Amino acid sequence: MRIGFLGLGQMGTAIAANLLRTGNALTVWNRSAERAAPLVEQGAVLAANPRAAADKAAIVFSMLADDHAVESVLDGQDGLFQGLAQGALHVSLSTISIGLADRLVAGHAARDQRYLSAPVFGRPDVAAAAKLSIVVAGDPADMDHAAPLLSAIGQRVYRVGDKPSMANLVKLGGNFMICAAIEAMAEAMALVRKGGVDGQRFIEVMTGALFDVPVYRNYGAMIAEDRFVPAGFTAPLGFKDLRLAGEAAEAERVAMPLLGVMRDHLLETIARDGEAVDWSAIGRTLARRAGLD
Amino acid sequence: MRIGFLGLGQMGTAIAANLLRTGNALTVWNRSAERAAPLVEQGAVLAANPRAAADKAAIVFSMLADDHAVESVLDGQDGLFQGLAQGALHVSLSTISIGLADRLVAGHAARDQRYLSAPVFGRPDVAAAAKLSIVVAGDPADMDHAAPLLSAIGQRVYRVGDKPSMANLVKLGGNFMICAAIEAMAEAMALVRKGGVDGQRFIEVMTGALFDVPVYRNYGAMIAEDRFVPAGFTAPLGFKDLRLAGEAAEAERVAMPLLGVMRDHLLETIARDGEAVDWSAIGRTLARRAGLD
Amino acid sequence: MRIGFLGLGQMGTAIAANLLRTGNALTVWNRSAERAAPLVEQGAVLAANPRAAADKAAIVFSMLADDHAVESVLDGQDGLFQGLAQGALHVSLSTISIGLADRLVAGHAARDQRYLSAPVFGRPDVAAAAKLSIVVAGDPADMDHAAPLLSAIGQRVYRVGDKPSMANLVKLGGNFMICAAIEAMAEAMALVRKGGVDGQRFIEVMTGALFDVPVYRNYGAMIAEDRFVPAGFTAPLGFKDLRLAGEAAEAERVAMPLLGVMRDHLLETIARDGEAVDWSAIGRTLARRAGLD
Amino acid sequence: MRIGFLGLGQMGTAIAANLLRTGNALTVWNRSAERAAPLVEQGAVLAANPRAAADKAAIVFSMLADDHAVESVLDGQDGLFQGLAQGALHVSLSTISIGLADRLVAGHAARDQRYLSAPVFGRPDVAAAAKLSIVVAGDPADMDHAAPLLSAIGQRVYRVGDKPSMANLVKLGGNFMICAAIEAMAEAMALVRKGGVDGQRFIEVMTGALFDVPVYRNYGAMIAEDRFVPAGFTAPLGFKDLRLAGEAAEAERVAMPLLGVMRDHLLETIARDGEAVDWSAIGRTLARRAGLD
Repeated sequence: MRIGFLGLGQMGTAIAANLLRTGNALTVWNRSAERAAPLVEQGAVLAANPRAAADKAAIVFSMLADDHAVESVLDGQDGLFQGLAQGALHVSLSTISIGLADRLVAGHAARDQRYLSAPVFGRPDVAAAAKLSIVVAGDPADMDHAAPLLSAIGQRVYRVGDKPSMANLVKLGGNFMICAAIEAMAEAMALVRKGGVDGQRFIEVMTGALFDVPVYRNYGAMIAEDRFVPAGFTAPLGFKDLRLAGEAAEAERVAMPLLGVMRDHLLETIARDGEAVDWSAIGRTLARRAGLD
Repeated sequence: MRIGFLGLGQMGTAIAANLLRTGNALTVWNRSAERAAPLVEQGAVLAANPRAAADKAAIVFSMLADDHAVESVLDGQDGLFQGLAQGALHVSLSTISIGLADRLVAGHAARDQRYLSAPVFGRPDVAAAAKLSIVVAGDPADMDHAAPLLSAIGQRVYRVGDKPSMANLVKLGGNFMICAAIEAMAEAMALVRKGGVDGQRFIEVMTGALFDVPVYRNYGAMIAEDRFVPAGFTAPLGFKDLRLAGEAAEAERVAMPLLGVMRDHLLETIARDGEAVDWSAIGRTLARRAGLD
Repeated sequence: MRIGFLGLGQMGTAIAANLLRTGNALTVWNRSAERAAPLVEQGAVLAANPRAAADKAAIVFSMLADDHAVESVLDGQDGLFQGLAQGALHVSLSTISIGLADRLVAGHAARDQRYLSAPVFGRPDVAAAAKLSIVVAGDPADMDHAAPLLSAIGQRVYRVGDKPSMANLVKLGGNFMICAAIEAMAEAMALVRKGGVDGQRFIEVMTGALFDVPVYRNYGAMIAEDRFVPAGFTAPLGFKDLRLAGEAAEAERVAMPLLGVMRDHLLETIARDGEAVDWSAIGRTLARRAGLD
Repeated sequence: MRIGFLGLGQMGTAIAANLLRTGNALTVWNRSAERAAPLVEQGAVLAANPRAAADKAAIVFSMLADDHAVESVLDGQDGLFQGLAQGALHVSLSTISIGLADRLVAGHAARDQRYLSAPVFGRPDVAAAAKLSIVVAGDPADMDHAAPLLSAIGQRVYRVGDKPSMANLVKLGGNFMICAAIEAMAEAMALVRKGGVDGQRFIEVMTGALFDVPVYRNYGAMIAEDRFVPAGFTAPLGFKDLRLAGEAAEAERVAMPLLGVMRDHLLETIARDGEAVDWSAIGRTLARRAGLD
C-alpha cells in the first residue's frame, strides 16, 4: 500500500519513521524539503507538493502546526484535494479547530474522498517510541481501514464517535485539562511557597500522594524550578489551543469559567515574560502576583 | 509505650487499629463511646474523656472532623491540654485551619507539651491498608520520635517544614488540587458531551492517555455517571476546605482565581442539589449550565 | 455638499434623518430598499448600491450591524471602495472589530480615500433626538471636516486619537462596562433577594444612592422584573461585542477576568433561555444559579 | 429627647454634629475621648463609656469601624447592653456583617431593647452636608420612631425590610457594586491604554456618555492618574467588605463570580502595593498585569 505524509516537524518526522517501518511505500512532503532527508535515507520518497504526496496513496496522513498550515495544503492545483484519489483516505493527526474539521469533512466528501480526524497526545519522544495515544473519530469502516497504521504509531487508539470533529473536540478538552493541571499547581504552589514551604517538596508530595503522572511531574518541576525556557510548548501555542476550545464552547453554548481564567493567565504571562516561554510559566505569573518575585 | 487516640470516625478507627498492631498500649476516646467497641475488642482501653486518653501517654493522636471538633477536646477540666504530660507529644492528623494549627502550637508550648501537624491523604480503605500519605511538619526531633508510628499507619511520610502549620497548608493545597481536577473534568465533559461525545468514553481517554490516577478515575466516573450520592466527601465539606484555603490565601495575600471559581460552583451545587451530594456534583452543575439536564 | 448614507436600520434611519435636516443633499442605500421610503419622502435620494450612494459624495456615513455587514458593502463593482471619490471621506458609525477598522484604514488609503471611525453610544430614541455620544478617531483634519455633521447627529463628540481603531476600542470598552454594570446588578440582586430583600427596592436604593444613570435604571428594572423580551440588545449581540473586546484583549495581551466571567454568563443564558432574550437576562441566569427560580 | 452616640471617627463626628443641630440633648462616647472635643464645644456631653452614653437615652446611634469595634461596646459592666433602657432604641449605622446584625437583634430583644440596622452610603463630606443615603430595616414602628433623626442626617432614607440584617445586606451589595465599577474601569482602561488611548480621555468619554455619577468620576480619575494615596478607602477595608459579602453569599448559597475576581485583585494589590493604597489601586494591578508599568 502507498502512504502519503504531509508535515515533517518533530512530531511528523517521528510518526512517519514508524509508518516506514510497517513496510509500506511512503511518500512525504514538507514545506521545507530539507527536513525530509533522514526519512529519504530510510527509503521514503520526497514529493514536490501535497498533491504529489497524495498521488496513488491509499491513505494520506497530515501532521501540521495549526489550522492555517492545514488550510495551506488543501486547495489549489498542487493541493491535497486535487491529489487524493476517489475513495482514498485522509487522516488528520493535527490539533485543529472544530470548524476546520467540519470543513475537511465537507471538502473531502464533495470529491468522494474519505476523512478521519485522529489527533494525538504525546511529545516527540513518545511519538518516536510509537507510544502515542490516538483519538479517532469518523466512519467506522474508515477507522477499521486505518487501524493497523494507527497501531503502528500509537500505543492506544480511542474511538470517540462517528463524526470526525468529535476527536478534535476531545483533543481540545484534553489540552484544556493539561492546562488546568498547570493552573492548579501554579496557584497551590504560590500559596504554600508564600507560607514557607519549598516548592519542589510540595510537588514531591502532590505527585507522590495524588498525581503520579508525567503531566504533573514534568510541569510541576518546571514551575518549582522557575524554568520555562526552552519551552516544550510555548505560551502562545497554549493560548491558541485554549482559543480553539473557547470557540468550540461558544459554538456549543457551554460556560467554562476555568477557560477564561487560564486564557487571562497566558495573556499576562506573554505580556510580562514574552512569547518564548513555556505555557507552564503561568506558575511564574501567579508567583509574581503574590509578590514572590 | 502508651499511645492515646482521639476521634474514632471511619478514618480514626482504621488508623487506631493499625497503631494497635504495633504492640503499644492504646487508650482511645470518642464523643460517642459506642464507636470504640471494635477497638476495645482488639485490646484498646476506652477513656472517659480526652484528658484520660492522654494520661501517661507518650504520644496522643487526634483525628477529628474539623476545627470545631478539635477545639472541643482541648480545653477545660477534661481536656487534652490538661491531660497531656510535660514533654509528651500531640500529633494532629485532622484537616484543620492554619489558624488552629498555630493556636495548637502556642497552647502546647505554654504547657511544655510538644505538637506536630500530620494531616493525611487517603480514604478509609487506604487508611485501613496502612497506605496513607502523611504530611508532617514541626520540630525535627518530634518528627523523629513519631516516625515509627507514622510509618505504621502510612505508606509515605513527607516532612515539609519545621513549623507545624506548613503541613496543614500543604494538605489544604492538596485538597484544592483535587477539587481543581474535578472542576477541569466537569468543564471539559460539559463541552465534549454537548458536542456529542460520550462522557464515560471521554474519561477513559483522559485517564488512559494523561491522568491515570485514582483522583481522575474515581471522580471522572462519578461525573460521567451523574452519580453523586452516597457522597464520599460532601459538597459542604469540600466547601469548608476551600474556605480554609481561602483564609490562608487571604492571610498570605495570594490571589487564587480558581479557588473563587470552585467555591462558587460548590455554592451553586448546594443551592440546587442540596447538602448531601458529593463535591464532584460540580459536574452536574456545569452540565446543567450548558443545558444538558 | 452631497452626503451618502449606508445602512437604514433603526439607528441609521434616525441618524440619516438628522443629516437631512442639515440641508445637505443625502443619498441613501440599504440592503432592503423599502426601509428608505420615509427618508425619500423627506427628500433623500435612494441609491441602487453602495457605489451609487457614494458617487459624488464628499462624506459617506455607514451604520451597519456588524463586521460582516460592513465587509459586504466595501468590495466589488458596486462597492463603496469603487464609488468613493479620491479625497472623499468615509465615516463608519458601526460597532466593528479593531481588525476591520485597520483594514478600512488600509483599503481607503490605498485608493486615496479618507477614513474615520466614529462609533456611537445611544439607543434609537437617543439617535432620533440627535443626542448620541460620538467617539471619533483619525486624522485631525478629517475630524474637523466631519465635525459639523457629527454635531448635527450627536450631543457630544469625543476625539480619542489619531488612529481610527482607537475609537472602536473605546466603544468596545464602553460596551464592556455596560455589561459589567449588568453583571454587578445581577450578582448583587441574587444575593439580596435570597436574603429576602425585594429586587425592585434594591435597584431603587442603588440608583438613588449611587448609580442614577439610565444604564443602571433601565437594566436594573429589567432584572428586577425578570423581563427580557422584547430585547433591546440580545444576548448573542452582547456576546459578539464581548468577543470583539476579547480579540482586542488578546491582540494587546491584556488580561480581563471580568470579560471571561461575562462571556460565560451570556453563553449560559443563551443555552438556557434562548437567543432572543436581552443580554441583561444574565440576571435570570444568576438568580437560577442561586435556586431563585 | 436624649440621644446617645458611639463612635466619633470622621463619619461619626459629622453625623453627631447634625444630630446636635436638631436641638436634642446629645451624649457622646469615643474610645479616644479627645476626638469628642469639637462636639463638646457645640454642647454635647462626653460620656466615660458606652453604658453612660446610653443612660436615659431614647435612641443611641453607633457608627463604628467594623464588627470588632461594635462587639467591643456591647458587653460587660460598661457596655451598651447594660446601659440602654428597656424600650429604648439602638440604631447601628456601621457597615457590619449579617451575623453581627443578627446577634444584635437577639441581644437587644433579650433585654427588651429595640434595634435597627441603618447603614449609610456617603463619604465624610456628604455626612457633614447631611446628604447621606440611609438604608434602614427593622420593625416599622421603630423606623417611624427614628425617622425624624434619620432625616436630619441624610437626604434619603430607604426602608428595605422588617429584619434589620436586610439593611446590612443591601449595604454590602452596594459596596460590592462600587467595587465592580472600579473593576470594570480598571479592566477597560488597561485595554484601551494598551491600545494607545489616553486613560483620562477614556474616563471623560465613559462618564460623559454613560456613567455620569461620582463613583465613576472619582474612582475613574484616581485610576487614570494612578493616584492611590492618600486612600479614601483602603484596599484592606475594601477586602473586608467583600469578605462580609462573601460570608453572606456563602450563608445564602449564592454564587458571585465577580466577587471572587475582585477579592483576588485586592489581595494582589495588597501583596504588591501594600496595605495603605486605596481599593481603586486595582487599576494599577491590572495595568501591571498588562505590562503597562
